Amino acid sequence: MRAAFQGEHGAFSEAAIKAMLGEAAGRVPCPDLAGAFRAVVEGRAEVAVVPIENSLGGSIDETYEQLLRHDLVIEGELSIPIRQCLMARPGVGVGEIARVYSHPQGLAQCRRFLEAHPGMALHAVYDTAGAARMVAAEGGPIAAIGSEEAARLYGLAVLEAGIQDDPGNTTRFIRVGRERRAPTGADKTSLMFALKDMPGALFKALAAFALRDINLKKLQSRPSRERAWHYAFYVDLEGHLGDERVRRALAHLEELTSALKVLGSYPQAV
Amino acid sequence: MRAAFQGEHGAFSEAAIKAMLGEAAGRVPCPDLAGAFRAVVEGRAEVAVVPIENSLGGSIDETYEQLLRHDLVIEGELSIPIRQCLMARPGVGVGEIARVYSHPQGLAQCRRFLEAHPGMALHAVYDTAGAARMVAAEGGPIAAIGSEEAARLYGLAVLEAGIQDDPGNTTRFIRVGRERRAPTGADKTSLMFALKDMPGALFKALAAFALRDINLKKLQSRPSRERAWHYAFYVDLEGHLGDERVRRALAHLEELTSALKVLGSYPQAV
Repeated sequence: MRAAFQGEHGAFSEAAIKAMLGEAAGRVPCPDLAGAFRAVVEGRAEVAVVPIENSLGGSIDETYEQLLRHDLVIEGELSIPIRQCLMARPGVGVGEIARVYSHPQGLAQCRRFLEAHPGMALHAVYDTAGAARMVAAEGGPIAAIGSEEAARLYGLAVLEAGIQDDPGNTTRFIRVGRERRAPTGADKTSLMFALKDMPGALFKALAAFALRDINLKKLQSRPSRERAWHYAFYVDLEGHLGDERVRRALAHLEELTSALKVLGSYPQAV
Repeated sequence: MRAAFQGEHGAFSEAAIKAMLGEAAGRVPCPDLAGAFRAVVEGRAEVAVVPIENSLGGSIDETYEQLLRHDLVIEGELSIPIRQCLMARPGVGVGEIARVYSHPQGLAQCRRFLEAHPGMALHAVYDTAGAARMVAAEGGPIAAIGSEEAARLYGLAVLEAGIQDDPGNTTRFIRVGRERRAPTGADKTSLMFALKDMPGALFKALAAFALRDINLKKLQSRPSRERAWHYAFYVDLEGHLGDERVRRALAHLEELTSALKVLGSYPQAV
């Protein structure tokens, strides 16, 4: 089994692959999320393991966009703790650091630490492990924010560990591929939809679930990319597409939506 | 009338002040949103004019956090188009630019442009106008992304205008102060709440409005900062706190929420 992921070796996504699929799984680094999905579509990997939601930052819209664009399904999920570390070449002290490289999410997760160190200019790059590699290659009074594993891989010293604002910082990863998972009795179904323009549209949409006692595990809205001040909704519900009442709820929901895509039914992580 | 805003002269917020309060209004620059609110609390300004929502990026959580923290109310709103420009010292060409400074939102809004120019390293700073000032001061093969006004103020040349992904990129600004506005017949009331832990909680909360034919102009959820995988909701509804049915809907809503704050009733922008 080969799993595509965004970033370079040492990325948090790579840790998620090891936790979901074991150490033996092949790992295919990709420059961005679109590339990770493309690797599966083009057969260079069987699955992609990608972040879908962070406990503080919320849903990762680019992942939802890729799910919308491709005919792949969610096969499983796993949450892993995200512990951000400040790392530099051995010998560089915290006080000397003039520039910090990381993914924008990595910088955002460490806002308080960075505000307390105003001498560090922020430099956004495409992934945390790539930031570590750059710091190792360039040298000088610079640092990266990323995983302990990235520091180890690129020979950097960890100057401070756990510098994220939220000690409970967690990211939920999903495995995306072509396998439609059979019901296990403890499943989740993920969908996204946009509502028709009508009064009380969301209330009516939620009624499709509430009237059938279907529990929502997640509901998040975000601005639509197509129409200013309109919203798309991301929903996770308890149940499987194979359940009669889930199928009926989705048929009901379809009456109220201008767009609806089911992203997969898969076992709930415990 | 003095209005506090986040950023330096040339910030988009300053354009919002001029549009809302006229050219004669005093303008008090503040390093961050917290500072803009503090300026009002401490009497250095009568109001703060701050961004609350972008058509692409969604709600600005830090503004909601400040509204939660202070005893100030929303007095009015206005949407203005956001046209991002790439600017550098006169004589610097697009092809030479090695580093681009802007607010993280400015960088995010121009993602496609920046992806098409991979030679430009991204450098996040606290505001777009500050980025322009830095580029003017430092010189070299660097550029800023910000308003045309910022380029004019700091003597920079606009290399490309309108580089944001979305040509309709718009930000809604609010005026925050101590004045409780009287009903005009076309008002909006803004609130934020967190739901009690119960099945169908959001459905029941929306019923408080739907059952009274109160129209929601906005509903957005976002991860709670207090509890992982819980959500806070931002709602704008049509109506004024002085309306009997709005008051009754809020009393009903209170039965279902673990936290509820009304942020103000104010005239709807046309």
